[in-house]
Amino acid sequence: MNKKDVAIVLAGGIGVRMEASRPKQFLDLSEKPIIIHTLERFEKNIQISLVAVVCHMDYVEYLDELVKKNGLKKVYKIIPGGETRQESSFIGIKNCSPGTECVLIHDAVRPFIDDKIIEDTLTAAKETGAAGTVIDTADTIVVTEGHFIKEIPDRKNLKRIQTPQGFCYKTITEAHEWALKKGIKDATDDCGLVLAMGRPVRAVSGSVFNIKITDQADLSLAEKFIAMVQ
Amino acid sequence: MNKKDVAIVLAGGIGVRMEASRPKQFLDLSEKPIIIHTLERFEKNIQISLVAVVCHMDYVEYLDELVKKNGLKKVYKIIPGGETRQESSFIGIKNCSPGTECVLIHDAVRPFIDDKIIEDTLTAAKETGAAGTVIDTADTIVVTEGHFIKEIPDRKNLKRIQTPQGFCYKTITEAHEWALKKGIKDATDDCGLVLAMGRPVRAVSGSVFNIKITDQADLSLAEKFIAMVQ
Repeated sequence: MNKKDVAIVLAGGIGVRMEASRPKQFLDLSEKPIIIHTLERFEKNIQISLVAVVCHMDYVEYLDELVKKNGLKKVYKIIPGGETRQESSFIGIKNCSPGTECVLIHDAVRPFIDDKIIEDTLTAAKETGAAGTVIDTADTIVVTEGHFIKEIPDRKNLKRIQTPQGFCYKTITEAHEWALKKGIKDATDDCGLVLAMGRPVRAVSGSVFNIKITDQADLSLAEKFIAMVQ
Repeated sequence: MNKKDVAIVLAGGIGVRMEASRPKQFLDLSEKPIIIHTLERFEKNIQISLVAVVCHMDYVEYLDELVKKNGLKKVYKIIPGGETRQESSFIGIKNCSPGTECVLIHDAVRPFIDDKIIEDTLTAAKETGAAGTVIDTADTIVVTEGHFIKEIPDRKNLKRIQTPQGFCYKTITEAHEWALKKGIKDATDDCGLVLAMGRPVRAVSGSVFNIKITDQADLSLAEKFIAMVQ
């Protein structure tokens, strides 16, 4: 059996922050749902073999129609999500096809993932077992303790973590099983679980364009990005 | 002599990030230069007695005309800035009038500072000696070491620091003198100098609206904020 690299797209959110009729991943960006832009990036990438989408159960059927309508061939499973992000992520992992070598876990609402990010993350994950994409922080970050500022760490060692995050299939499966044994249930980040387990995680350069669309201002910015490249 | 609270507005930047004919603090926001919006907030606040502006030397005269044209009575000094932010900040501090009790150091390009932020920061500064305004981080922040992610600190203890930052006059003067003795010349943050000297710094709640306008996207967002309240 050939080894495969699988993208797991997390679309479980119901988008409480965006006042709209549909979850934000289904809102239109340049006349096409945001999630379709995201899935098309994986469809066109030569290294990704298959795509599994973890989706809120109320939208599984709707997404299935969108996938068919847009001719996306790599999406082989649309799976109802769990109660938490951690659970949804593990559901995606457990639903990867046999022979999966690496997984790339990605937010549905980051439609500007590109080939370079996908390939750099997979390469680092294969070398180290786990890799997360990071970008510089625009602001100065401080550490607080109660009502006091305790420390201003050197900004050059602080980064904002994005998705995709890439993992050897064995590493991320072990990390999720380990977390459940430890009673950890609300992790918002897969790299965090691998770190907590004591394994190394590589930092890969992400992109300032790989934004997460969580509100109307992000959506306006995303429209500008699309206009820039057209 | 009555004790006074003085605002020091830092407008030293020449705005290399914004492709425009003038430094960003002089660009129009709702038909008025950004810095005039900022100065008006202090003009209207009852706790601030005087405002000192530290400005790039090429723009001192231009700003003086703007201040007169807009009838700003509290701006009593416009001083040419230094080579670094730290130097400009210290120049502002040294140019405060006799009898200054507290200073509020603020970026010229944060025009949405409001009375609550000004007063909360001054109150905390009077109690503790130093105070900085902070807001939550929207992103997950990680600590990197070379090409590896070493730690994902608990997000609830990480904050983004903004301006204003408020200080007892004696505390901030000592911090700057201490820094120069130690050879520290490139501090980008006044609270950081007080912390480095080993003194406590309070964390005061800032506001997500108190944005720093550094590029065209920020300026568009600022226009939206203005439209919201009109």
